[in-house]
Amino acid sequence: MVNVKVNLEKRSYNIHIDVSTSNLIGNFMQTMKVNKKILVISDTAVGNLYGIQMVELLIKDGFIAELYCVPPGEHSKNLDVAMELYTKAITLELDRNCAIVALGGGVIGDLSGFVAATYLRGVPFIQIPTSLLAQVDSSVGGKVAVNHPMGKNLIGAFYQPRMVLIDINFLSTLPNRELYTGLAEVIKYGMIADKKFFTYLCDHSRQILDKRPDVLTEIVRRSCEIKAWVVEQDECESSIRAILNFGHTIGHAIEADTNFSVYNHGEAVAIGMYGAALISNHLGMCSKATVDVLKHILLQFNLPVYAPECGIEDLFKLLYRDKKVLDNKITWVLLNDIGEVNLCNQVPENIVKLALAEITQSNTLS
Amino acid sequence: MVNVKVNLEKRSYNIHIDVSTSNLIGNFMQTMKVNKKILVISDTAVGNLYGIQMVELLIKDGFIAELYCVPPGEHSKNLDVAMELYTKAITLELDRNCAIVALGGGVIGDLSGFVAATYLRGVPFIQIPTSLLAQVDSSVGGKVAVNHPMGKNLIGAFYQPRMVLIDINFLSTLPNRELYTGLAEVIKYGMIADKKFFTYLCDHSRQILDKRPDVLTEIVRRSCEIKAWVVEQDECESSIRAILNFGHTIGHAIEADTNFSVYNHGEAVAIGMYGAALISNHLGMCSKATVDVLKHILLQFNLPVYAPECGIEDLFKLLYRDKKVLDNKITWVLLNDIGEVNLCNQVPENIVKLALAEITQSNTLS
Repeated sequence: MVNVKVNLEKRSYNIHIDVSTSNLIGNFMQTMKVNKKILVISDTAVGNLYGIQMVELLIKDGFIAELYCVPPGEHSKNLDVAMELYTKAITLELDRNCAIVALGGGVIGDLSGFVAATYLRGVPFIQIPTSLLAQVDSSVGGKVAVNHPMGKNLIGAFYQPRMVLIDINFLSTLPNRELYTGLAEVIKYGMIADKKFFTYLCDHSRQILDKRPDVLTEIVRRSCEIKAWVVEQDECESSIRAILNFGHTIGHAIEADTNFSVYNHGEAVAIGMYGAALISNHLGMCSKATVDVLKHILLQFNLPVYAPECGIEDLFKLLYRDKKVLDNKITWVLLNDIGEVNLCNQVPENIVKLALAEITQSNTLS
Repeated sequence: MVNVKVNLEKRSYNIHIDVSTSNLIGNFMQTMKVNKKILVISDTAVGNLYGIQMVELLIKDGFIAELYCVPPGEHSKNLDVAMELYTKAITLELDRNCAIVALGGGVIGDLSGFVAATYLRGVPFIQIPTSLLAQVDSSVGGKVAVNHPMGKNLIGAFYQPRMVLIDINFLSTLPNRELYTGLAEVIKYGMIADKKFFTYLCDHSRQILDKRPDVLTEIVRRSCEIKAWVVEQDECESSIRAILNFGHTIGHAIEADTNFSVYNHGEAVAIGMYGAALISNHLGMCSKATVDVLKHILLQFNLPVYAPECGIEDLFKLLYRDKKVLDNKITWVLLNDIGEVNLCNQVPENIVKLALAEITQSNTLS
């Protein structure tokens, strides 16, 4: 068993990573000092695969566990579904020491975490992420949220889980495209913080795509470690945590511009990372070779680097809609080298548009 | 100007108390290092009296302030109205450094605070409480919430304001019954922590009821100081903060049993404090004289000590519905003496029912 500790004083917690960790859910929950009643939240897809078994394991270990499934997909991440979950929690008479367990991908983690953060002003929250993207990104760091009709994740909180339980076995049933989307975030960790890890990814691309459990365990471990290291320094995103947004500035704009229906999150971030690398190169911050090595690994992991469906001007406008924009200034995460980024909020408009032209494969600039 | 500091590390803040503090809103906001755009949330009653003037003062000092009023009363404290406020904030393009200001009583503070805690995962929040109850209780300590159809304050967070601005002048337009409901909480602070303050209240009852600004300033100051002292020790109510619930265990049951339409919060708490004192006396923890001196000051401040509309069995059942009940155990706040309480979660059922019989003025016990 591999453990990554997230050190946040009273809110510190462990991430347990291995194959078959979820079989030990009962033992893990017993160490949490929570009440016997547990609400497990999942979606109908993951719930059918793993939810019932998880609840049975908990019951076998003396817990009173109940599974509640919402429809799969981003559409469930809203205040109406949160209201359903509050009602369920109240009906079950969950008190402040009863845990809410999120079993699923990012949507389930974000939604359940928001409910756990706000039900009775906060109850113990456990993350059991089932997708690679959730394992390396959304389940660690305490960002929870639901969407508003006018934008994603606009309603949320910083609320740390009490524990994250990562079972590498879950990845065996993960569709390939979902694997690739997770790999985009894994590549990001190499890009922002660890050239050696980036090289490891390049060297093990075959084993990764073959879902070799030992290699997957290692890339999840190192990704969580890097994310934990960043979050420990800046829990509520007032400074350095922003580096986790490498590729996300343009990525979010691409997702919005294509109405979240063409590219999934990792794919949009892949294109966004390539765009940010281009900007860095145009500013003279990093070499063309650095941009190319990034492009190469993205393509190797079946990720896109172009979004021809998007228009330069549309993307440019959408950049300013991000909730990280402060005083109308975009904080760009730019590249010095593989494993080394810095923050910059003064990129000339023409440089940004040049990069947008390249990733949208447009011939003309307005 | 009187200041009370709430020491909560990075979340520390000041409570500024005086007559006419609200005239200085612009200066105070300038010290907060927030962006120019400010959303002031109020209800139509308070908004008409003070809201427009407050926004004008802010604009005069260079802010872009907007007033948004919801209907007055508990009915506005729900997720639907919160959703309206999120939409307003998004439409105004408030970013993470833009402040939300709550101008009103407890409902406005709790609702605005919940929105501030969750909009973009938290934005700067300023409390300007206009009722005595909000000034001494809800605006200090970071408890924010909205109601669920199945119970009050079931959806919320612990989210500290960046500043609390208390203007004693606001109390001049406060209806008498609203003054009395605030005084119930003021008496509570004396009962749980400060015999000398309790004596001060007894000695100055005339000046308090006459709304003498200097005396009101002093009782608000000392109440905030006691609340801050408790909250500093236990921000998220895992231990000693529970003493603030003195009178609230029975009080909440009375409010629920009468459908929140007979007694306001302070009145229910007054009866609840009397009930808790009776239980303490029956357990041999405090003298009959202590119970009587409490009863005397409650009546002097035009607060009730009996709830004849309620039934013993109904109240008894409702006691267990409180969100502070853990593992089906009620944590009672009981009285040793004026200014000295302790927590007890093992009060015999017959002692509780005896006290309920007395406060409901029932002749028979089931």
